[in-house]
Amino acid sequence: MLQEFSLNSVKLSDTFWKNYQALVKETVIPYQYEVLNDAITVDVQAERADDTLPTGKSHALENFRIAAGLKSGEHFGWIFQDSDVYKWLEAVGYSLINQPDNELETLADEVIELIGKAQAEDGYLDTYFQIKNPKLAYRMLYFSHELYCAGHLIEAAIAYDQATGKQSLLEIAKRVVENIQVHFGYEEGKIHGADGHQEIELALVRLYEHTQDKQYLTLAAFFTDIRGSNPHFYANEVKRNLDEGLSDEKPVIDPAYLQANEQPKNQQIAQGHAVRMLYMATGMAKIANHANDNELLAACERIWEDVTKRKMYVTAGVGSTVHGEAFTGAYDLPNDTMYCETCASIALVYFAYELFKINPKKEYMDVLERALYNGVLSGASVDGKHFFYVNPLEIHPDSCRHNPGKGHVKTTRPDWFGCACCPPNFARLISSLQKYVYTQDEENVYLNLFVASQLTTEQGVRIKQKTAFPYENQLCIEVDNGAGKLFIRKPSWAKNMQMHTEATVEETADYFIVQMDEKTRIQASFEQPTLAIRSNPKLWTNSQLLAIQRGPFVYCGEGRDNSMLFSYRVRLASISKAKLTKNASVLPETLQLVVSAEKVKNWETDALYNFVSDKEETSPAQLTLIPYHLWGNRGENELRVWFPEYTEN
Amino acid sequence: MLQEFSLNSVKLSDTFWKNYQALVKETVIPYQYEVLNDAITVDVQAERADDTLPTGKSHALENFRIAAGLKSGEHFGWIFQDSDVYKWLEAVGYSLINQPDNELETLADEVIELIGKAQAEDGYLDTYFQIKNPKLAYRMLYFSHELYCAGHLIEAAIAYDQATGKQSLLEIAKRVVENIQVHFGYEEGKIHGADGHQEIELALVRLYEHTQDKQYLTLAAFFTDIRGSNPHFYANEVKRNLDEGLSDEKPVIDPAYLQANEQPKNQQIAQGHAVRMLYMATGMAKIANHANDNELLAACERIWEDVTKRKMYVTAGVGSTVHGEAFTGAYDLPNDTMYCETCASIALVYFAYELFKINPKKEYMDVLERALYNGVLSGASVDGKHFFYVNPLEIHPDSCRHNPGKGHVKTTRPDWFGCACCPPNFARLISSLQKYVYTQDEENVYLNLFVASQLTTEQGVRIKQKTAFPYENQLCIEVDNGAGKLFIRKPSWAKNMQMHTEATVEETADYFIVQMDEKTRIQASFEQPTLAIRSNPKLWTNSQLLAIQRGPFVYCGEGRDNSMLFSYRVRLASISKAKLTKNASVLPETLQLVVSAEKVKNWETDALYNFVSDKEETSPAQLTLIPYHLWGNRGENELRVWFPEYTEN
Repeated sequence: MLQEFSLNSVKLSDTFWKNYQALVKETVIPYQYEVLNDAITVDVQAERADDTLPTGKSHALENFRIAAGLKSGEHFGWIFQDSDVYKWLEAVGYSLINQPDNELETLADEVIELIGKAQAEDGYLDTYFQIKNPKLAYRMLYFSHELYCAGHLIEAAIAYDQATGKQSLLEIAKRVVENIQVHFGYEEGKIHGADGHQEIELALVRLYEHTQDKQYLTLAAFFTDIRGSNPHFYANEVKRNLDEGLSDEKPVIDPAYLQANEQPKNQQIAQGHAVRMLYMATGMAKIANHANDNELLAACERIWEDVTKRKMYVTAGVGSTVHGEAFTGAYDLPNDTMYCETCASIALVYFAYELFKINPKKEYMDVLERALYNGVLSGASVDGKHFFYVNPLEIHPDSCRHNPGKGHVKTTRPDWFGCACCPPNFARLISSLQKYVYTQDEENVYLNLFVASQLTTEQGVRIKQKTAFPYENQLCIEVDNGAGKLFIRKPSWAKNMQMHTEATVEETADYFIVQMDEKTRIQASFEQPTLAIRSNPKLWTNSQLLAIQRGPFVYCGEGRDNSMLFSYRVRLASISKAKLTKNASVLPETLQLVVSAEKVKNWETDALYNFVSDKEETSPAQLTLIPYHLWGNRGENELRVWFPEYTEN
Repeated sequence: MLQEFSLNSVKLSDTFWKNYQALVKETVIPYQYEVLNDAITVDVQAERADDTLPTGKSHALENFRIAAGLKSGEHFGWIFQDSDVYKWLEAVGYSLINQPDNELETLADEVIELIGKAQAEDGYLDTYFQIKNPKLAYRMLYFSHELYCAGHLIEAAIAYDQATGKQSLLEIAKRVVENIQVHFGYEEGKIHGADGHQEIELALVRLYEHTQDKQYLTLAAFFTDIRGSNPHFYANEVKRNLDEGLSDEKPVIDPAYLQANEQPKNQQIAQGHAVRMLYMATGMAKIANHANDNELLAACERIWEDVTKRKMYVTAGVGSTVHGEAFTGAYDLPNDTMYCETCASIALVYFAYELFKINPKKEYMDVLERALYNGVLSGASVDGKHFFYVNPLEIHPDSCRHNPGKGHVKTTRPDWFGCACCPPNFARLISSLQKYVYTQDEENVYLNLFVASQLTTEQGVRIKQKTAFPYENQLCIEVDNGAGKLFIRKPSWAKNMQMHTEATVEETADYFIVQMDEKTRIQASFEQPTLAIRSNPKLWTNSQLLAIQRGPFVYCGEGRDNSMLFSYRVRLASISKAKLTKNASVLPETLQLVVSAEKVKNWETDALYNFVSDKEETSPAQLTLIPYHLWGNRGENELRVWFPEYTEN
């Protein structure tokens, strides 16, 4: 079992990630505050084509003011709009750890004070129900998201306490939990159900980790155990509210959509809403870890296998359909109608990390890294003010405009979303990145990610990781006051990785294990060749297609750099010879690849189909590729990740 | 301008098509009667995944009994359920021309009598409005389908008159039209609008052609002219019904969906609901033909270009999305989520034929034939009791089950549909096939389709076409009492076509033109090589894929014949060397193709993605292909029309 280091024991000095953290601090966080406060005019779009979804403004802070009695008005936005504020606060907390800022802290204190004012005397806190429908509090868990919001409140409170030592938000959160404990539990008369959208479970375990107060772990275990124990729980809620005249809503509840068709420990596959699934799995893994629950761990491993071996895009995007924002069947990974919600890749990072801590196998960190550098980073624009909810692997803009089956696929990042879960989720993950760089067991330290940084352990071991990765191919690791071993991860994309050190080095399939002494110096070198990726033949939509990766980055082509992008074919042999270049229009550094390719010539006829007896007429062409996460930063254009393989000699 | 021959001037003797006409007569028509009469238990499915759609039974004849006062009860089924009965009667009419049957005629007479009893005194006839909501008659044209049903009644009446000389159905239809004339027209106080679903227009022109009574052409022209002249017409209907308390329906009207965003003569592209679009275009072409309306003809030609050069599948399926059963944008032709409704391919046959009669260019008949042998024929099973509404080009059954974006894609043909437009549409087209085989202008005869048959013109010219096509490669044409020229079409798939005859032959790009004398004998020979098809590079979803055609048939592979179908790759050079074989499990004749191909080996790992540096491991394999229209007759399995091209030497 591995332990996380506290966030303030790791200081980042990394060019790539410091830039992102600075973007979050200087742009994303202030921008998001303005949006949540309705202080700037932005184009708030629905996350998918549906005229009934809230758009136009956030109103999230205004909802708190109304709930607090400071303003009059109606609640606006999604039932879970509060969580946008909590996630913003969580991001602020992490950011303050790395980059203290009195002004920002004061602003956050004010928001926390407002939240406190909105909290009811009994501890209950959810502006939607407080303003709109108090009688339905805790009575429509199939969609209420009350405990989901509470979970995000808890996570924010922990972050803010870690950052500032201020307990006020934590006190609010604890009072919310007390209120939850009054209403939920195995006891007769209490509610024997969990929130339709998982989140409280993982948050409660984090609260246990933060406070060491076991009641929170117990409550998390309750929610994870009670879920699915009565598959009719949510349908019964609907019926009871109808019978009692409290609601005229008649939603059709699909228990599999919210993973309540059976108990989590019995789940066999990844199914239903992808973010719910993976937040749940994260909570399950955390409980399994702390409670040594092998049954729950086995379920986590089944879910992991199903996701990563059958239901994950090469970008670590997950969720193949907009319908329910959900997983579909095995090997069903369409590149153009997929969902791949930013939050789902973030949830995959969380889940991977929990499993890694239980059993530090290479595959967990490989997937975590794949998600981080691809499906997560693609969620935000380089200017920090535009966000993707859906992260496609293939875009033909005209098709997105005219084919309603792609109504959810935006061709550029909107300013904001009516359902704004992704933008603050992005902010909180990026600003807490140092959490993932190192982990420890009782004696040893694991170096997971190649990120320039300095770690100081509680035992006083200092590990300095100097690197210009991903722009360069080495790590200088300086250990002072060392003891135990340093496990240096061997990423799957790295070739010819070598340790140059005086210290004793052992090599396994997954790690270089270096004995740390009082003063240990390690020069780790590796190569980042440009790699071709094929899909398992079972993944039928990628038949005879190649993707391209270099280092942790999956690459993509955009129409802006490659006219008639869908006319390009790539030769396998050319991929490793790709040239690394600069592209000032989108890249801060040399991360652009140029691959010798072939391009099908345009037809001279406008016929749609032709009988042919000759090989396709192609001409040599240069295919320009950029890291996937940077697509869509230069206006609307074509996008492609998987390219047809051209094999003719 | 070409003229059709009357149906009874052409006698079919063709093996391929006589079998289909016999199937329609002996199985499809009796089966459909039983279904319409709720006399047998069948699985009536919704045409797409939507629990609000009618399913379970047809009730179509029962609706007439209720409207006639012979039974009590409620209307059941779609608002246009009556049209199922009319299309069945139309098919019966055509069938009686070819294959007289007293028992069937008596049954049809009874149905006609029932329809007559249901007709109101003022001529109005629509069981839905008569039973359910008389006050809304002609007041919700945005969805009422009343004139659509009337159009199908007219077409049935013409067929039945042609077959039997019995006028009773024609009289009913004429009284319906009289009633329509009372309510619709340019005059003050009349309704200035057309049915949301086009059909009445083409039917009225057919009634004009049948009766030579010009009022019907005038009314058709009115409906075609008034459409879109006020784009708010349908929205105004909704508002008025709400205002007057006649309805609480608040549908959002998209004028483009029903081609009422502008007048038909101003339509620039194929848009909206595909069947509506093409029924409208058929009516427009008929009016343009009779009224010498060049503006309308130009619009037809624009629509034709847009459909056939940008929006048509290789099977002549049209309609790229289930959302609105509609066209999408140019070159947006996904093979797995498409709609390709059987009715839409049938409508394309109608539209192509009208344009062909105006200007007998090869392309019109090529598309007509492509639709007929592929997208239309695929609509029914070989047993005549199962039908497709949606005709996909790519099926992975598991994906259809688990991906809601494919909720409309059935993997096998259901017994019947809640919206049963396609099955009787199939029956009426097949049983009137002789209509398309020959056409004439004032002096000459056009031989359009290679179908064994005998034509006797009004002038007494007898043309006997003897052929075992598509199983063999020649036509023996015997002309007796000939005069004028015989234009023998050169299909685009035919190679090395030659005329062996004593007569004078002229050759153009589109035709062999043979001078017909008292006794002319022509031996036409040609080849049907197996052809590879590529898509225009603009059709991005078919990038580096090949389809295969032989004669008029597009071919497909099924999982039943080819395990791991999506692992096959085809070499261009092998396609022309395909072997023609028999497949007793689905084919009556030697129409199966076996192509030497490559098959990607299954991976030994269950990884979803791998970094690769070697070429794909393939092994030689035989790819078995059957004509597309026969797919899905042997249980659920994989389907593919477009195969990856394998070019490595």
